[in-house]
Amino acid sequence: MKMMTNFNIPELNNDLVARLQHKLDNKAKPVGSLGQLESLALQLGLIQNSLSPELRNPVMLTVAADHGITAEGVSACPVEITWQQVHNFLAGGGGIGLLSRVYEMDLWVVDAGVNYQFEPHPKLIDAKVAFGSENFRYQPAMGMENCTKAFNNGREIVRKFAGQGTNVIGFGEMGIGNTTPASALMSIICGLPVEECVGPGAGLNSEGVQHKAKVIQDAIDKLGISESAFENLAKFGGYEIATIAGGMIEAACNRMVILVDGFITTSALLVAQEMDRRVLDYCIFSHESDEQGHRKMLRHMNASAVLKLGLRLGEGTGAAIAYSVLKGAVAVLSEMTSFEEAQVINTSHIRMEEVPKVS
Amino acid sequence: MKMMTNFNIPELNNDLVARLQHKLDNKAKPVGSLGQLESLALQLGLIQNSLSPELRNPVMLTVAADHGITAEGVSACPVEITWQQVHNFLAGGGGIGLLSRVYEMDLWVVDAGVNYQFEPHPKLIDAKVAFGSENFRYQPAMGMENCTKAFNNGREIVRKFAGQGTNVIGFGEMGIGNTTPASALMSIICGLPVEECVGPGAGLNSEGVQHKAKVIQDAIDKLGISESAFENLAKFGGYEIATIAGGMIEAACNRMVILVDGFITTSALLVAQEMDRRVLDYCIFSHESDEQGHRKMLRHMNASAVLKLGLRLGEGTGAAIAYSVLKGAVAVLSEMTSFEEAQVINTSHIRMEEVPKVS
Repeated sequence: MKMMTNFNIPELNNDLVARLQHKLDNKAKPVGSLGQLESLALQLGLIQNSLSPELRNPVMLTVAADHGITAEGVSACPVEITWQQVHNFLAGGGGIGLLSRVYEMDLWVVDAGVNYQFEPHPKLIDAKVAFGSENFRYQPAMGMENCTKAFNNGREIVRKFAGQGTNVIGFGEMGIGNTTPASALMSIICGLPVEECVGPGAGLNSEGVQHKAKVIQDAIDKLGISESAFENLAKFGGYEIATIAGGMIEAACNRMVILVDGFITTSALLVAQEMDRRVLDYCIFSHESDEQGHRKMLRHMNASAVLKLGLRLGEGTGAAIAYSVLKGAVAVLSEMTSFEEAQVINTSHIRMEEVPKVS
Repeated sequence: MKMMTNFNIPELNNDLVARLQHKLDNKAKPVGSLGQLESLALQLGLIQNSLSPELRNPVMLTVAADHGITAEGVSACPVEITWQQVHNFLAGGGGIGLLSRVYEMDLWVVDAGVNYQFEPHPKLIDAKVAFGSENFRYQPAMGMENCTKAFNNGREIVRKFAGQGTNVIGFGEMGIGNTTPASALMSIICGLPVEECVGPGAGLNSEGVQHKAKVIQDAIDKLGISESAFENLAKFGGYEIATIAGGMIEAACNRMVILVDGFITTSALLVAQEMDRRVLDYCIFSHESDEQGHRKMLRHMNASAVLKLGLRLGEGTGAAIAYSVLKGAVAVLSEMTSFEEAQVINTSHIRMEEVPKVS
């Protein structure tokens, strides 16, 4: 069974690069002196196919699920924390409840597969496929049917936000145990030994980390690696990861800016970009997590992160902070005065050369 | 002539560290998982001597001056840009006019020594000591009297903001040619060869950078290095640098959070911390500039920067972006729900151990 791989993700219009660069170079400042703000601005212009991009109705989608693999003792935390944190986020608490408010993103929490029956809540999106994934040490975490459901749920949710005018979306997650499926997917997709893909998560000691690696290796040995990334997602992933992967694909289809958060969210992108490489054009890599595998995931995609703040919380927290940097980037392109407007002598002919650095 | 070195900078109350850490550890998240946001929060708590710090009336002070040393051809840009950019900033343009607005800091521009007679403007602070510094290849840039005036102007300006309730202040600068005095001060204070302290500034080519290094070395050889950092500031500095150095000292005296920007602003801090080391307790190092010497300045002070975005514009732009990160940090300490408030199982007993990283 092959999964769909032809999505309607628009190719970027690279003819616009020169015009965007020209506009940036004519801002009243030394050429290139706003560094990564300028490269982000250029990417935003390409994503929106516009010389004056803007960020509208920013949404933070924090997707939650539980994981059968926790039965193997792969997490330092009790599993009840998943549903408790969903409540906490909805009440404006926790890392993402707080930071989405501070950075003015509209937070929505998605129940993709939490082991709890929630009461309806205006900011909770019910996309529950099951009450948690299966224990993939013994059987596929989701199976193709449920994985497809979760993936399509993500697409549908994001499509709705796109229809309401949202053009920038952050993805975050909550799920006790979810560094384990993320590490498994990373090992398979990046072709790295499991030991290089595991870390302490929410606080495992080194023995615990070794145990986690062994559980993953056993699972891979038992279930086997498929050729299709989506099939591997169905075997070794989790509901929030599948929902996020679908959401990212749909966001790219709608020319939305995608704010990728930490280790788990990036594992969802690893799957998504195997399905359609063009999704990467729409991604801003918010931060480099302190979870050791994350740096290698980023390297696998030739990505460099906006922030490096030693975060290892997930939930979308890094994406929320990076959104704030993005606001500056878009303003540089769309609002900053040009030499002409500023009546400042134009120095755009002065180009930096690679000066040999004394180190 | 010795400069004052005994300022009323409060010692931090280190007894508060354990209580701040306890409060952070009881937030509903794995211990330490918000990384640098937590260490910033802790520093903010110490600065304000409070378990619930807050950021009030944030001010961005962009200090401008001209430099006699530009007669030696040390800058790629025409000197008129200094006063033109002052106008531009006041009109809300340029990098800092834009980013202080985006990140909601109240921008004030200080004329510390620009070679231009400005009309009064509600956001322009007249602290002009001269119409630019002297060419320090041949004579002291300011001399002790004028340098003291500029330093005290900085103190007075900041004291006024402190009196109005501002407890966080960013420093930025504008001054064509000012990487040259900054490099000279860096070489002297950090004890590094001039060649390691110069860079392209606003766009010098490698020949220009070598010329700049030669000009600085000639000046140091001619005027000689003093024992006192302040005397070196008077010889090799500039009016914006002296005004910022004084401003930083006064900010620390008033328990204000100091947002240090890039290469020039950090050179002012190099002087200030030689005068009173305690000023460093109040400093947030906003970003690591792309100007090569900046990294070494930071290393000299054992400082690590919040952001690394390849910025090399100055003006306060990096400080404005970092202010945005600071908002998140202070909110983590003051607003984020604890395990108890969130009704989430307390996991604060689970501590990260140093897991050996496979690289």
